[in-house]
Amino acid sequence: MNIELLTIGTELLLGFTIDTNAAHIARTLGEIGVRLVRRGSVGDRGDDIRDAVRESLDRTGALITTGGLGPTRDDITKRVVAELYGTPLEFHDEIWQVLVERFARMGRVAPAVNRLQAEVPRGATVLRNHWGTAPGLWLEDSRGIVIMLPGVPREMRMLLAQEVVPRLAARGANGVIRSRVVRTSGIPESLLAERLGDIEERVTPLTLAYLPGYDGVDLRLTAWNLPSAGADAALADGVGLLRERAGDHVYGEEERDLAAVLLDAARQRGVRIAVAESCTGGLVGKRLTDTPGSSDVFMGGVIAYDNAVKTQLVEVPQVLLDTHGAVSEEVASAMALGVARRLGVSLTLAVTGVAGPGGGSQAKPVGTVWLATALDGAVKTQRLVLPGSREEIRLRAAQAALLFGLRRLQSGARLDAPTDGAPTPA
Amino acid sequence: MNIELLTIGTELLLGFTIDTNAAHIARTLGEIGVRLVRRGSVGDRGDDIRDAVRESLDRTGALITTGGLGPTRDDITKRVVAELYGTPLEFHDEIWQVLVERFARMGRVAPAVNRLQAEVPRGATVLRNHWGTAPGLWLEDSRGIVIMLPGVPREMRMLLAQEVVPRLAARGANGVIRSRVVRTSGIPESLLAERLGDIEERVTPLTLAYLPGYDGVDLRLTAWNLPSAGADAALADGVGLLRERAGDHVYGEEERDLAAVLLDAARQRGVRIAVAESCTGGLVGKRLTDTPGSSDVFMGGVIAYDNAVKTQLVEVPQVLLDTHGAVSEEVASAMALGVARRLGVSLTLAVTGVAGPGGGSQAKPVGTVWLATALDGAVKTQRLVLPGSREEIRLRAAQAALLFGLRRLQSGARLDAPTDGAPTPA
Repeated sequence: MNIELLTIGTELLLGFTIDTNAAHIARTLGEIGVRLVRRGSVGDRGDDIRDAVRESLDRTGALITTGGLGPTRDDITKRVVAELYGTPLEFHDEIWQVLVERFARMGRVAPAVNRLQAEVPRGATVLRNHWGTAPGLWLEDSRGIVIMLPGVPREMRMLLAQEVVPRLAARGANGVIRSRVVRTSGIPESLLAERLGDIEERVTPLTLAYLPGYDGVDLRLTAWNLPSAGADAALADGVGLLRERAGDHVYGEEERDLAAVLLDAARQRGVRIAVAESCTGGLVGKRLTDTPGSSDVFMGGVIAYDNAVKTQLVEVPQVLLDTHGAVSEEVASAMALGVARRLGVSLTLAVTGVAGPGGGSQAKPVGTVWLATALDGAVKTQRLVLPGSREEIRLRAAQAALLFGLRRLQSGARLDAPTDGAPTPA
Repeated sequence: MNIELLTIGTELLLGFTIDTNAAHIARTLGEIGVRLVRRGSVGDRGDDIRDAVRESLDRTGALITTGGLGPTRDDITKRVVAELYGTPLEFHDEIWQVLVERFARMGRVAPAVNRLQAEVPRGATVLRNHWGTAPGLWLEDSRGIVIMLPGVPREMRMLLAQEVVPRLAARGANGVIRSRVVRTSGIPESLLAERLGDIEERVTPLTLAYLPGYDGVDLRLTAWNLPSAGADAALADGVGLLRERAGDHVYGEEERDLAAVLLDAARQRGVRIAVAESCTGGLVGKRLTDTPGSSDVFMGGVIAYDNAVKTQLVEVPQVLLDTHGAVSEEVASAMALGVARRLGVSLTLAVTGVAGPGGGSQAKPVGTVWLATALDGAVKTQRLVLPGSREEIRLRAAQAALLFGLRRLQSGARLDAPTDGAPTPA
């Protein structure tokens, strides 16, 4: 079954509200094999709402709307849809009594303006809203289905789960829309596509999407309307193939964060981690501590932003700073070794670079980053030249540092591992 | 002038991506009086893209698309729109050469697959993309305008600002849709609303919106289709009134970050800053170093996540940890003083707390955070109990620490300042 989504509200067109309802609805419907084929947003204007609803019915025959069911003047969804279906609004006293009781529990009298919320298009099914004042409505005839839900995220979610999903599922949608994601880092989209080669034919009937971000490129495989077991089997095969082709650029699956993967790898090996950060200014530590329970592995470290902190807290010799500059292989190495020594940990990650926008030079342009990792006293380094803004460079540098740490752990303490020295743009 | 927006990408319909581009485009267009009247999203399917583009042209005559301009097989926007306009794609060698050079700077050979990005519909204006590989395209004939932008947020934003806005503005829109934002922290929305009282009547014809977030409550005033000068004057008056009523909870305007405000305040006073972070794990340092040029004020500090780091690098006496626990006024104070001593800076911010989800107790529930600031050797502390998830607690704790530092600077070293001890929910 296909369906469309129309989110209604002038605020969505002004750009001050980011529409998070749409993503939730899409994911929820996918799980019961209902495919969202189009999304739209219009303001609180009758003509625009009517046109959009009519177009969706003509095109797809099924539509969910959110918003415009409240008690104020700009809440007109119900009226417009009823007009379109040629059906009158009728006052339902039992809905009104529920509202009266609801206000009474808060020690208030229900305002007259809320009486509008007790009006229902004749022939519509009322979807009881226990979480707010606006009931949902399900209106259906030969033209198709319009399911009207409130725009308040919590109310929308509860009504969707408890009233809409069971009814849609009962229509016997067969198959599910299900995805799996393989996460990669350290390889640009186009090179990854070359590596994967003819994989899109190999994974048929699954589809493959490339989703590049600052933390790498995610690969999403999607099964469309397959039986649940078939979807799972096809996705498992596809994920296996992706992992095989993308090799050691893969660090995890689904929403798994690289920092969490690194923490797990360290935990398994009984290794503790510390950081020495210059240009990332705490971002690597922040990433590692985003994960609950990181404290058994992550000790902390030093934000060695100023050179004085590098010398005073991580024992970088002043002569290295004078000779090679703060952004250098020598200083990165000294930071990694220094913090390892000071805190007595096995694995350390050090980052020093030019995040910009100022501070670049011909020899060390903005984006130049030196990473160092010390594992049981053995240091490796990487030089990167990262693209993007200050923010992007910092995000990519932190991601690259975490990936470098993970590769060190995975390759043990071998000094011939293929990672060192190789540029690894995130 | 009215315009529509079509965001293209199957991921937008699967619900795995929250569409933030749409909000940015809407706000930016409002600034030049171009009104976004409808938004839509379709997947990477030729028929759906073609239908949606045709409908927008018929309805409104002007459309911005985002997405589908990348180098992979599912990037088909350009081809579909060219077909709709009945115009062929032509290979532009000068675009290809720019791509070749871009890859060369990263030490790589441009992959053949990227040649697709050098193809341009005949008659289209190329919008040069200096921030990525996909140029934007402006195609226009008697049917209307289609402006194709890449979906990568940064590239879209830069192209919109530098190539699209000047061209649209030159078409002579009259009146502007303009907003100003006053940022507050340390006061909940409902208390702020009480303080502001009848302000909504006072600022007419502007509208006021409350936008609560983890870093505080933003207050947005909006002028709708006023002449530019009139909008500016009304907004200036409104902002003055908001600042007067909200008092010292106001820390800045527009997108000004509290960290940047603190850095400026410290810079003016010749004060340098360092941090000692436990539960925030580097987040306060990250916030301070997000701002370019922070290095003249911010020295760095210590991520004292594990107690061993607290004793070894910031000289917290073990007896304090044993007696009071890591999350205590005593340890927060010792962290602030210790890092000040170790790095010889005037102002330090220390944070220790229970970010959860585990680790809470009856005496110190999840969300308990002790902040300490040392200014020229004088310590003040704050105890907070912050609501929300681990992530929210950490974000709020970092924001509260920055606000605490700012208030210390603003009140000088006076020990009777009204901030200490007072809980300050973010």
